[in-house]
Amino acid sequence: MRIALGIEYAGTDFCGWQNQPNTRTVQGELEKAASVVANHSIDVFAAGRTDTGVHALNQVVHFDTDAIRSERGWLLGINANLPKDINVAWMKPVDDEFNARFTAIKRRYRYLILNRLSRSAVHHNRMWWHHHPLDIERMQAAADQLVGKHDFSAFRASECQARSPIKTLDKITVRRQQDCIAVDVEAKSFLHHMVRNLVGVMAAIGDGSKPVDWAGDVLRSVDRSQGGVTAPPQGLYLVDVEYPEQYSMPTVSGFPVLW
Amino acid sequence: MRIALGIEYAGTDFCGWQNQPNTRTVQGELEKAASVVANHSIDVFAAGRTDTGVHALNQVVHFDTDAIRSERGWLLGINANLPKDINVAWMKPVDDEFNARFTAIKRRYRYLILNRLSRSAVHHNRMWWHHHPLDIERMQAAADQLVGKHDFSAFRASECQARSPIKTLDKITVRRQQDCIAVDVEAKSFLHHMVRNLVGVMAAIGDGSKPVDWAGDVLRSVDRSQGGVTAPPQGLYLVDVEYPEQYSMPTVSGFPVLW
Repeated sequence: MRIALGIEYAGTDFCGWQNQPNTRTVQGELEKAASVVANHSIDVFAAGRTDTGVHALNQVVHFDTDAIRSERGWLLGINANLPKDINVAWMKPVDDEFNARFTAIKRRYRYLILNRLSRSAVHHNRMWWHHHPLDIERMQAAADQLVGKHDFSAFRASECQARSPIKTLDKITVRRQQDCIAVDVEAKSFLHHMVRNLVGVMAAIGDGSKPVDWAGDVLRSVDRSQGGVTAPPQGLYLVDVEYPEQYSMPTVSGFPVLW
Repeated sequence: MRIALGIEYAGTDFCGWQNQPNTRTVQGELEKAASVVANHSIDVFAAGRTDTGVHALNQVVHFDTDAIRSERGWLLGINANLPKDINVAWMKPVDDEFNARFTAIKRRYRYLILNRLSRSAVHHNRMWWHHHPLDIERMQAAADQLVGKHDFSAFRASECQARSPIKTLDKITVRRQQDCIAVDVEAKSFLHHMVRNLVGVMAAIGDGSKPVDWAGDVLRSVDRSQGGVTAPPQGLYLVDVEYPEQYSMPTVSGFPVLW
């Protein structure tokens, strides 16, 4: 049978999602824990392969197993075998057609920026500290030039393995509350580093070091070397993955509001 | 001259505020960093001596020095010598009458509870995970019995060094946003473990294991053994310390809103 899980993790102490020899990865820790519960070796497949330092609130994964366990048995059993910086939020049996990566119809990321003079001890692994004042209207105006179906080569990491650089960005919204800025980005799929590269360009426009039109110029250049700095990983969260309605996938409440 | 600093820290990896031999304390790290900048040995005095694991957004401290440095010199210099989990948010020269502890007229704490079935990897050192549903109206009704001037012996740690157990609790408010509950507590001063003991009693009432009137019963017993469990440290934040208006102390914006 095939099982889907909703996974939350703090990316700080992981070398990203994907298994690599001799490193601590989310996939590796999750496969180890699930294999203990299943009592056989488990391979898990994720909706999004997040980078080192990137967090997830509702990463969706699937795996196949012959083991018979209750929902509670899987959930509590896997959590009991996971380190504190990963947890399973929900589990759901799915049909064999379901694939966490290929069945997904939308991925939602949030990028958090702490915009103030002083760094933060409490949030230092959870937000990007940007001490130059950022104008969110300029950032939103920059983002508006990037929404839609485009060749995003200028926002693509050189090591990106996607077949095509053409993606459809459904939505980017920029909001501020006090000294915290959140950038919400939605698309069916993304190129490698794409969200962090988008935020890098938006920040350079937001702090006035580049004009607003620069976002469109970078996009049209289809040249990564014309882009800005890649925003650092600690501000980025894979918030949610959406699947066709027929799957009725559970949702999580996401960010608690810490007002 | 006397200097006041606003300090932020993540309490997770500290054995609390106060210097102790062979342990990593906030006071110890701060004195080390300030001594480097001053080029002489510095002793710092804090408004509140937080416990192991307790965080601060705007802890206020003062120290005396003969060194002449610009505001920027103190701020950036001390931050450059501090580990990532402490930072100075602001500095302000003060007169010799000012004492971070004794001049304070109000201390504000916030206690954060994550109230859902699944634990959280992202927030595990920043909130108390309480998986039984909590009714915040019951928690507020419990809190309302504790506000005012009382003998708080039932909410006082055995090792508390305060001369008197009589304190005036100005305010407790309980709010919920999704699965996050915040308890805000204000008083001129607190007994050792008092906020965590208040929250422990409120949580037992909130999840229905004790009746609402139990809060008043515990208070009137003036007996710590009649109280509830002490809520764990990772949910507690020293948010702010207030001083008489004449000092015009800087404020920090506090919790970024992560909605």
